[in-house]
Amino acid sequence: MELYGERGYEQTTVAAIAERAGLTERTFFRHFADKREVLFAGGDALQEALLSAVDKAPDSLAALDAAAAGIEAIAVLLPDRAVAQHRQAIIDANPELRERELIKMASLSNALATALHNRGLTEPSASLTAEIAIAAFKNAFERWVDKTNQLGLQELIQQAFVAVKALSAEAQPASR
Amino acid sequence: MELYGERGYEQTTVAAIAERAGLTERTFFRHFADKREVLFAGGDALQEALLSAVDKAPDSLAALDAAAAGIEAIAVLLPDRAVAQHRQAIIDANPELRERELIKMASLSNALATALHNRGLTEPSASLTAEIAIAAFKNAFERWVDKTNQLGLQELIQQAFVAVKALSAEAQPASR
Repeated sequence: MELYGERGYEQTTVAAIAERAGLTERTFFRHFADKREVLFAGGDALQEALLSAVDKAPDSLAALDAAAAGIEAIAVLLPDRAVAQHRQAIIDANPELRERELIKMASLSNALATALHNRGLTEPSASLTAEIAIAAFKNAFERWVDKTNQLGLQELIQQAFVAVKALSAEAQPASR
Repeated sequence: MELYGERGYEQTTVAAIAERAGLTERTFFRHFADKREVLFAGGDALQEALLSAVDKAPDSLAALDAAAAGIEAIAVLLPDRAVAQHRQAIIDANPELRERELIKMASLSNALATALHNRGLTEPSASLTAEIAIAAFKNAFERWVDKTNQLGLQELIQQAFVAVKALSAEAQPASR
C-alpha cells in the first residue's frame, strides 16, 4: 500500500510489493491472487463480522436495527483513518478498482439480505433493509475519510441511521 | 440486442449488429462508442427524467417522496418487460457489463443526491435519500424482470417505497 502511494497503483509491480514486504513473488501469490487483492484483503472477515452480528442480534430488534448492529461490527474491523484515506485515494484514482469496490459492496449487501432473511424477514424488505444499511455504511465511510471531518466512524454510522429514520418519518405515511 | 440473445454478447461483432440494424459500421460508431453502448443507450434520458421530476416535485413534498417521484419518472421510460428481461440476462452473464450497470446506478444516485441538495436537503440526508431511492428502484426492477412476478413496474416501485417506510417505522426511534 505504501508503494501504491509512492509510485501510483499502475506503476507498482508485484515484484516490488513482494520485495517491500520481504516476500518472494511466489509467496505473494500464495496470499493474494493479484495486486488488486492487497487492497481488498480482509473482505471475507468483514462479511463474517457483519453476518455474525446480525445473527446474534436479539429477535426483538427491528430489522433495520439488526442491520445497523451488523454495520457497526464491520466498522470495528476497519484500519485506522489514515490507512483508510490512503486506500480510498488509490481506489478513487483507478476505474477498475472503483468497479471492484462497488462489487464488494454489492456482495456485502447480498450477504446481509440473506442474514436478514434468516431472521424471518420477507422480500422485498430483506433486500431493501440490506441496501439501506450498506448505503448508511458507505455514507458514513465517505464522511469519515473526508479530511475535514473530525467524527469517529461509529458516530458517523449512528448519524446515518438516525438520518434514514428521520427521512421516513417525515415522508407521507405509506398507504397500503 | 436480438443478436446478443442469439449468439451471446461476446460472440456478436459490431459488423453483425450494424448489418442487422441496416447501418454501416461507420454509422454505428457515430451512434454508439462501442458495442457495450447498445445496452446502455438511453442512460442520459433516464437521468434527465429523474432530475426533472425531482425539480418539479412540490416543495411541500418530503425528500423521500420527491425521490420516489423521480424514480417513477424513470420507470415510464423503460422498455417493455420482455426487452428488459432480455437485456438483464445479457448483463448478468458478463462481469464487465455487471460492473458497468453498477456504475450506471451509482451515477444515477449521485445525480439524484445533487437534485435533492438543490431542494435544500443537507448532507448526509441528500446522499442517503438518493441511495435509498435507487435501492428501491433496483429492488422493484429485479422483481419486475423476474419471470414469476406478474405486477407492473410502477406498482413494484410503490411497494418498495412502502416497505422502506415500514422498516423505519418499526425500528427504534432515532435518539438524537
